[in-house]
Amino acid sequence: MISFTTDYGLSDGFVAACHGVLARLAPAARVIDVTHLVPPGDVRRGAAVLAQTVPSLPRGVHLAVVDPGVGTARRPVALATGDGSLLVGPDNGLLLPAAAALGGVATAVHLTNRVWFAASVSSTFHGRDIFAPVAARLFSGAPLSEGGPEITDLVALPDPYVEQRPGLLASDVLTVDHFGNVQLAVPASALASLPAAVLVDGAPAVHAATFGDAGPDELVLFADSAGYAAVAVNGGSAADRLSLTPDSRVTITY
Amino acid sequence: MISFTTDYGLSDGFVAACHGVLARLAPAARVIDVTHLVPPGDVRRGAAVLAQTVPSLPRGVHLAVVDPGVGTARRPVALATGDGSLLVGPDNGLLLPAAAALGGVATAVHLTNRVWFAASVSSTFHGRDIFAPVAARLFSGAPLSEGGPEITDLVALPDPYVEQRPGLLASDVLTVDHFGNVQLAVPASALASLPAAVLVDGAPAVHAATFGDAGPDELVLFADSAGYAAVAVNGGSAADRLSLTPDSRVTITY
Amino acid sequence: MISFTTDYGLSDGFVAACHGVLARLAPAARVIDVTHLVPPGDVRRGAAVLAQTVPSLPRGVHLAVVDPGVGTARRPVALATGDGSLLVGPDNGLLLPAAAALGGVATAVHLTNRVWFAASVSSTFHGRDIFAPVAARLFSGAPLSEGGPEITDLVALPDPYVEQRPGLLASDVLTVDHFGNVQLAVPASALASLPAAVLVDGAPAVHAATFGDAGPDELVLFADSAGYAAVAVNGGSAADRLSLTPDSRVTITY
Repeated sequence: MISFTTDYGLSDGFVAACHGVLARLAPAARVIDVTHLVPPGDVRRGAAVLAQTVPSLPRGVHLAVVDPGVGTARRPVALATGDGSLLVGPDNGLLLPAAAALGGVATAVHLTNRVWFAASVSSTFHGRDIFAPVAARLFSGAPLSEGGPEITDLVALPDPYVEQRPGLLASDVLTVDHFGNVQLAVPASALASLPAAVLVDGAPAVHAATFGDAGPDELVLFADSAGYAAVAVNGGSAADRLSLTPDSRVTITY
Repeated sequence: MISFTTDYGLSDGFVAACHGVLARLAPAARVIDVTHLVPPGDVRRGAAVLAQTVPSLPRGVHLAVVDPGVGTARRPVALATGDGSLLVGPDNGLLLPAAAALGGVATAVHLTNRVWFAASVSSTFHGRDIFAPVAARLFSGAPLSEGGPEITDLVALPDPYVEQRPGLLASDVLTVDHFGNVQLAVPASALASLPAAVLVDGAPAVHAATFGDAGPDELVLFADSAGYAAVAVNGGSAADRLSLTPDSRVTITY
Repeated sequence: MISFTTDYGLSDGFVAACHGVLARLAPAARVIDVTHLVPPGDVRRGAAVLAQTVPSLPRGVHLAVVDPGVGTARRPVALATGDGSLLVGPDNGLLLPAAAALGGVATAVHLTNRVWFAASVSSTFHGRDIFAPVAARLFSGAPLSEGGPEITDLVALPDPYVEQRPGLLASDVLTVDHFGNVQLAVPASALASLPAAVLVDGAPAVHAATFGDAGPDELVLFADSAGYAAVAVNGGSAADRLSLTPDSRVTITY
């Protein structure tokens, strides 16, 4: 299995061009698209979606390209993880949360072996010309060490802001999903000590197991399916209700 | 073949997580995505899209999750149909129109056998934790009867409003498609007795075989490719022209 | 491999219905979706996306349906190209740029052999009823000549406007991609004689190899990954910056 995550959108042929490369170089691979609707250049969002999806995927190669630095000196990298998965993409923090979810980085290489790349590498489409060909090579069994020199100084994203003390839990938003559910950057376990009635940014909310435990249109604070604390509206959008975006910070008081 | 229909959207990893479950538990299955852009929680729309697509798909398992009641007492169900297809999803009316298109419900079970579910079932993501694992089991040949007890009291959606008498045909809108074509809840056969010139919500329209039988920008009343009466604008959007939504009612007079 | 390009959108079951036909009639085919988000009826856009994607795909059958004339006398056609690929779709100019990218049209037939179509052909969904069945037949090895009589008078799109003289390069926009990068209808080679500092519609721009060669938010004129001259904003959208659409004309002066 090769999974595939990008910010390429679905209206151009970019995703298909990479699928074509994979079909030619790794015809036996089943390719699972994670999403191609990461907002353009939003590495943080791409990293979160990838990290929360890989635990549900078969072991394999995870190809991810959210790459605002394409054409600059940022390094193309491939990582092997503790559980035997492989990750391929730009060295901008995109891959590390997924690696952490897959047992941590075991080995990382700076991809410099041009034999693994397309014969001609464009300045702007490394998904097609570098990352997809490398993913296909690794899927086909090429040893990671042939991809380039080992490195240990991978670029990481800044940690999100989180604060927890009696009566207060504050956190950056990690993601806002399609339903308007707002995921916080704190593990669900942080909710254990919270009472059933809380305030989310000052608005009354029910701390419960699922949407259905709240009345229609009520705010719910719950442990989401990825293991994070999250805020939802039963039958509605918490993001809309609380005017939250992926750049917001949420404060829960009780 | 396993088909897959949801309201999960394409910007998160939800669809991919389910694909991952299917790839692990039913690696031989070809998965065909019907759509994942059913409006959030819109069971009626999901039911219509699924029912109109299954006749074009190979026989197989149809997995569908539009599930505003996830985490409540609504039942997870699986149905066998008269033509040997299987349908898996929530018991909220989503599956029944497709079952009708596939020969009717032969057997239905309330999915209670937790051995068929993921080891840990979240409160909010039954697509990944219940429905996809069950679809994979059924695809792999597990007998439906092992899924849980047989039931006969499946939840159905209300019938759409339809009225036909000489000079008038009124109907709820069934769906509005990507092109703005408006499908009515009446079979195309209801058009047989209508003249070539009609009024749709008071606007002149041509009753014809296809868009091309009307002039550019003209309204057309026709039998659509799913066998329903529908209204289109040649080269434009009938929904925009007539300000129609999926919740509208249309009145044709002649 | 069968590639698949349409303007069907992703919210209905139209794409899946065609996938179902392909799965039934050509079960061994790997299907690669190019895009289904060509704007409704925009043949020029569909032709550009397809032509720029096919070079990255394995040799195979390319099924493309952007067909505002469905149900009129426009001909369904299939083409064999110089490199052994096959193209199937309406005769409205959609296929010819891709054919040119694949070695030119070797043979073209008007699809008239109804044995190759669905048993019942609707007036409005030729993707499902004509083009997908034909693509499956051709994938499975049926000779093109059995599809219908050979033709040589294929419909072509008008050539885009291009003007180049010392100090000026003017061109229609060919496409605007998901990132807001604006592709011109001139090959990248046309940029060879241009200096490093140019004006694009009067705005200062850097003529460079890639986005990264410009400062943040600067305009860049570059050779894109499909081999065309293109305009981008480093970290932003050139289409937004310059108020350009697919119908615009761009003038570069230097």
